[in-house]
Formats: sequence, structure tokens, C-alpha cells
Amino acid sequence: MNLHLYDYFRSSAAYRVRIAMNLKGVQAERSYVNLFRGEQANPEFRSLSPSGLVPVLEHDGQRIYQSLAIIDYLDGLHPEPPVLPADPAGRARVQGLALAIAADIHPLNNLRVLNFVENDLGAGKEGRMKWLAHWCHVGLEGLEARLSAEPATGRFCHGDQPTLADICLAPQVFFARRFDLDLSAYPTVLRIDAACQQIPAFADAAPGKQPDAA
Amino acid sequence: MNLHLYDYFRSSAAYRVRIAMNLKGVQAERSYVNLFRGEQANPEFRSLSPSGLVPVLEHDGQRIYQSLAIIDYLDGLHPEPPVLPADPAGRARVQGLALAIAADIHPLNNLRVLNFVENDLGAGKEGRMKWLAHWCHVGLEGLEARLSAEPATGRFCHGDQPTLADICLAPQVFFARRFDLDLSAYPTVLRIDAACQQIPAFADAAPGKQPDAA
Repeated sequence: MNLHLYDYFRSSAAYRVRIAMNLKGVQAERSYVNLFRGEQANPEFRSLSPSGLVPVLEHDGQRIYQSLAIIDYLDGLHPEPPVLPADPAGRARVQGLALAIAADIHPLNNLRVLNFVENDLGAGKEGRMKWLAHWCHVGLEGLEARLSAEPATGRFCHGDQPTLADICLAPQVFFARRFDLDLSAYPTVLRIDAACQQIPAFADAAPGKQPDAA
Repeated sequence: MNLHLYDYFRSSAAYRVRIAMNLKGVQAERSYVNLFRGEQANPEFRSLSPSGLVPVLEHDGQRIYQSLAIIDYLDGLHPEPPVLPADPAGRARVQGLALAIAADIHPLNNLRVLNFVENDLGAGKEGRMKWLAHWCHVGLEGLEARLSAEPATGRFCHGDQPTLADICLAPQVFFARRFDLDLSAYPTVLRIDAACQQIPAFADAAPGKQPDAA
């Protein structure tokens, strides 16, 4: 396939791509960019990722940025199993749920953002944790409200097969757990995450199972 | 068409949807949710948008959340003109550029986030402005680096027709200008924005031209 993934075990965005690749049975060579040690600032990595973000996928000389764009590209290369429902209403619902996580929760809790809150805004470790918890809870409340009320929710976010929404949900739940947030107000989110963890494609993509895990 | 859009003139995400609707010649009934006055907290709006965010599109009883999901849905209803290139490499590039704005710049500068920085983190008006400028500049630097270097850039972000990337770029430039940021380091971004503004679909979607503009 000639695929190369720039990965970091703790990146939620890279974790999404790992799940999608596992679901589709796609292999890639890997390079690991340790964001915690600041390796995203290395000139070599900057020359291929001007934003300094992971994941980046290379395929046949093309570089693809942004996890959701990478997953859409993989879906084009390997359509089975699809990550989006075929019907327009279902497709829109799954994309909306995925983006509620990928565009409204996760960007606020990126490592670079947490560091800026703590250091540049001078909010300290306490402010960092207050920030992180606030945006996780705001986002998960909205998600729980939809998932618990909408009849299209099944064993997974949308029906009984995992979709792009679950690919975003599992890394977000992992992140919240890593910081010991009380998630008891989100029983539907937790039930769906538990269903995801029973699938090897999800379980094998977990940060702790990656070769670069600390 | 039976489309209803919940809109707010200053929302960058709603602005994207307005541009896409104009490009495709799609009309919708509109309701206006004044985020500045806190109308997103009204129980009636919360009952239809659990996250309290705009835009929301209603169509045939279905509610669609998240601007990029709404635009994809409109693209399904009205395929012409398409917002994404037909070739996989171009499609991935445009999605990556769009998400670099929609998932990495804009979420950090949402009104609710700026208010939290100023008030809840106690960073004050000075901290709010420092935050806003920092994330705008970080994001636009990455965008300029790609747009100025990649041969696929044309009159617009990708070739000579507007795509989803431009639909995201124009509202982001509008936002940065509203806060008087110095954008002179981003000549390619500014050149593409100027090309967008010559298209009525973009110009007519501008915040100042909306019925709910203050």
C-alpha cells in the first residue's frame, strides 16, 4: 500500500486513525513523533507538517493532514467496512456526532492548548485542570443528551455497527479517564465505549498498546 | 426544499453554511439565535440543540448539527457545484485545509471559549486578546506555509474554483480582521480571501449583510 503514518500514542487524533486502519485491515509504516518531548518542533517534522500536528499520512508522495480527512481518504482506498452510513440522514448524524468531538471538545484539550493555559495565560496547574474538565464535561453533556434521546443510537453511536462517531468517541473517553474525570453522568457514552472496547480494532489502537508508549 | 437554518450573523460556522447555500443556490427559512445575548441558553433552543451551538439545519424533520456535516448534507441534496474535488488526493487536501481551520483554529476562538478565558480563568480582557491573537496566528501561519508552497493552490485554496477550504477560510479571515490582527504575514491567505470576496455567494454571506446584524 505504501502508506506511512506519523503517529503519537497519546494523540486522540492519531488514535482515531489507528482505529480506522484496524477496522479496515490497513497496514502502514510508522514514525513516532513524541509531542510531550516537543519533537513536533524538529525542523525535519516541520518540513512535512507545517502546523506541527500529528497524525500525518503519506501515500504515494502525497501528504494528508487532519485525522478526519485521513479517515475519509482511507475510506476511499478501502471502502469496507464503511465508516459512514449510506443514507444521507444517517451520514449527517454520524458526521455531526464525530465533529462534536473532533471540532468542539478535542481541540480545546490538545497538549499545546493545555500548555498555553497553564504557562502563557498563567493559570497554573489548577487552571489547566479546571479548563480540561470544563470542556470535557460541556462536550460530553451535549453528546450524552443526543445519544440517550435519539432513536438512531444503538449498540454504537449509530445503530449496531461502529462508525466514525465511535472512532471519535473512544479516544475522547480514554482522554477523560486519563485525567480521572467523573463520567457517571454519561451512561450512554460509557456503554458505547464499552461496546467499542470489545472490538479488537478499537482495543488494539489504545495508546498503551503502541510501540512508542512511555 | 423545506429547509430551516438556525443562524447567527457573527458565527463563523454559520457563515460557512451561508456561503455553501449561496454557492448551491439553496434557500432556507431562518431563525436567528443571538449568541452574544445568550439566546443559545433558552430552553426552546436547547431542546433542539443540546450543545447550544449554531448552526443547526432542519430538513424533513431531521436536525443536522455541525457546519461541515451540514455542508456535506447540502452537497448530497444539491451536488452542483461540488464543494470537494472529485479526485481522492484533491478531496483529502481540501478537507485537510478546511479542518485545519474548522477543527484547529475556530474552536479555540469561539465566543464561549473567549468568555471562559476572560472570566472563568480570570485572564481578563488582556488575556482574552492574547489568546485570540495567539491561536489565530498559529493557525494562519500553518495555513500560509501550505498554501504558499503547494502547487495545487490556485486562485483559490485548491485550483481555480472555490471549495470547502475557501468556505472555511473566508470566515476565519473575517474573524481575524474584526479583531484588527496584523495579517501581513499571510499574503496567500489574503489573496485567496480577496478572490472569494469577488464571488457574490461569499460576499452576500458576510455577517454585516445578515438580517440579524446588530
